[in-house]
Amino acid sequence: MTAPQTSWIDSANDGQTHFPLQNLPYGVFSVKGQSPRVGVAIGDQIVDLAALDDAGLLPAAAKGTFAGTTLNRFIALGKPTWTETRKRLTALLSGEDAALRDNAALRDKALVPMSAAALHLPVDIPGYTDFYSSKEHATNVGRMFRDPDNALLPNWLEIPIGYNGRASSVVVSGTTLHRPNGQIKLPNEARPVFSACRKLDFELEMGFIVGKESALGEPVSTADAPAHMFGMVLLNDWSARDIQQWEYVPLGPFNSKGFGTSISPWVVTMDALEPFRRDNPEQSPQPLAYLQQQDRNAYDIALEVALQPEGAPAPSTICRTNFKAMYWTMAQQLAHHTVSGCNVRVGDLMGSGTISGTTPDSYGSMLELTRNGAEPVTLADGSERAFLQDGDSVIMTGYCQGEGYRVGFGTVSGKILPAR
Amino acid sequence: MTAPQTSWIDSANDGQTHFPLQNLPYGVFSVKGQSPRVGVAIGDQIVDLAALDDAGLLPAAAKGTFAGTTLNRFIALGKPTWTETRKRLTALLSGEDAALRDNAALRDKALVPMSAAALHLPVDIPGYTDFYSSKEHATNVGRMFRDPDNALLPNWLEIPIGYNGRASSVVVSGTTLHRPNGQIKLPNEARPVFSACRKLDFELEMGFIVGKESALGEPVSTADAPAHMFGMVLLNDWSARDIQQWEYVPLGPFNSKGFGTSISPWVVTMDALEPFRRDNPEQSPQPLAYLQQQDRNAYDIALEVALQPEGAPAPSTICRTNFKAMYWTMAQQLAHHTVSGCNVRVGDLMGSGTISGTTPDSYGSMLELTRNGAEPVTLADGSERAFLQDGDSVIMTGYCQGEGYRVGFGTVSGKILPAR
Repeated sequence: MTAPQTSWIDSANDGQTHFPLQNLPYGVFSVKGQSPRVGVAIGDQIVDLAALDDAGLLPAAAKGTFAGTTLNRFIALGKPTWTETRKRLTALLSGEDAALRDNAALRDKALVPMSAAALHLPVDIPGYTDFYSSKEHATNVGRMFRDPDNALLPNWLEIPIGYNGRASSVVVSGTTLHRPNGQIKLPNEARPVFSACRKLDFELEMGFIVGKESALGEPVSTADAPAHMFGMVLLNDWSARDIQQWEYVPLGPFNSKGFGTSISPWVVTMDALEPFRRDNPEQSPQPLAYLQQQDRNAYDIALEVALQPEGAPAPSTICRTNFKAMYWTMAQQLAHHTVSGCNVRVGDLMGSGTISGTTPDSYGSMLELTRNGAEPVTLADGSERAFLQDGDSVIMTGYCQGEGYRVGFGTVSGKILPAR
Repeated sequence: MTAPQTSWIDSANDGQTHFPLQNLPYGVFSVKGQSPRVGVAIGDQIVDLAALDDAGLLPAAAKGTFAGTTLNRFIALGKPTWTETRKRLTALLSGEDAALRDNAALRDKALVPMSAAALHLPVDIPGYTDFYSSKEHATNVGRMFRDPDNALLPNWLEIPIGYNGRASSVVVSGTTLHRPNGQIKLPNEARPVFSACRKLDFELEMGFIVGKESALGEPVSTADAPAHMFGMVLLNDWSARDIQQWEYVPLGPFNSKGFGTSISPWVVTMDALEPFRRDNPEQSPQPLAYLQQQDRNAYDIALEVALQPEGAPAPSTICRTNFKAMYWTMAQQLAHHTVSGCNVRVGDLMGSGTISGTTPDSYGSMLELTRNGAEPVTLADGSERAFLQDGDSVIMTGYCQGEGYRVGFGTVSGKILPAR
């Protein structure tokens, strides 16, 4: 094992931080009295890229794109500029280029303690699509909501099933959400009731951010798909199960999902994830030609979900799983999304679908963990949960384990407030 | 019958034009050598609002919002400014205020023949939602695709069913679309095939444009909903029926719809539609409280669909229906959309769902008109159509009949090119 390259920012080198030199995820932050701007996380610090840009230390191609309130302008510049900027930042933060390290005035200006910053939604999201790509999740849901003996629908093994989600209500980690109201059909009642959701759930997902637009009528192949991806985030697809069950036939989930979707503030680039590509899962039957792929498109990302009741001293981990188990890859999702001619845009968010593994402690939703509420999970403080209660916080985290370092996503968290 | 108020622009006064003084719909247009800007249609002319604004003839509150490439900045100003601008334009175009009529230089600058202008997508659409609000359409579809004896699903009479559509592929009238490719499951085949769509269809719809944002977690009531609507357009929800049938369970239509949605270029304001409000359709059972409405939210809009094969001398009308027959109103749609806490944004497009009447010639899709292809329609040139063929143009039109004038929507048209 060779020691990983280190940064002159000590907190980046402890082997535990999610933000070592090898990561350099992009986000949008603000500190008191300043407008939001683009930054990169390193250890417990944020590097203010607008400040580095002003000092002339970033690629000319990216000039002026870091002072805005979203990453979109930078992302739109395309992969060569992403890669060039990453190289420059690696040089500056390793000290190979001493221009930042040895300039005290610039350091004061450009380094912000993460604890002093507010993190904002990093991307303006023109479209949000949510897939359904875990075979275990689709099977678990099918077993509970449809036919236990034919849990997986016939189209599932042929199509990376997905649907259009609601982009307006995608929020950044830390945003509180009110328990949604809606129509619920109770057993033995002829008509639905209007009620606060009684089966509020999370879904552990990841999402990728589209980095390159495609034109209407021009599909993106699985081979070209990786070049259309800028990076990834953690995603919590909050779900109102009782509203969902009543509304979803025949046009899919709507109010059960549209009240809020949370993403992590740091976008981890595909460049940073490159060392963690793995062999694709075996697919049987072999997909139709347009879904076949030559690249390794799976990623080894360890994931956890924790639940913390209001006032509890610590969160309780209730799920541990890994992104590499997903049946359909992101390249297949994008190829399928565009094969009809549908265009994608810079900043589009594509959710993976709930990430569930094969063991009962690896399921990515309360619905599956508790078998639709029948077998509540027990938390560290002794309390039980069938579904989420008011005051509960859900905290998701994930990282790739390198040799002596972790490329991590930080967390996506959210707290549930009572229904209005 | 009193004679309607007229304009000094003669073509606005013939009683047949869709764009009399009573309409004044907003759009975005360009002429050679100029950037797109906001205009208003009157007779066979477009009034360049950027030019009128430069001349100081429009409300100060709207200053500077007409030179952009979309209506969003103007719409975001809110209803009092929409109404004030409409009043100003009515005064200027009736001649009650002679500032435009009597200024030859300004007329030259501000009046553009519609025939010389290109019309653009009028609105930047952050979110597109499509409802399913015609009882006749839902019944017809349920009969063909599901159970003929229980065609209407149990939730349909309780919920204004809708789903999130794909905003990126909403295009303006006149945009050609390639026939989509995708997965089709043929009877008696074990696996799907990849193929060009064989059951390409249109859906006659209307859509409203959201004019006022709502905050996450804050529902819009049916009473407040009309104030959140800026105006309406014609909408063709192109549909690939064979792709749809295979993909839509359990998360709804995706590739079967996402390859393109066409809207008309002129947004007819709710102010212009005010005289055409009608009593709401009777709803049984009475909806839950949050869906009940006191206002008259139905609108009397006569609609037609015509089909014109490549090279045919004229279009053939294949459907005549009326928007007033819709079971769920736009106010109910918006109230339902937001009742969970989902937020809406200025420019959001909300499609009505296919508008079908009770008689076989009033169905708003080929699927219904031909009973899923079993009974083709015969066109004026003697050719038959089960579904759309390459080269076919679909032309939708609609208007409200006033006393001596029509408030019309112009057309939304689109032509199908061969699959790639």
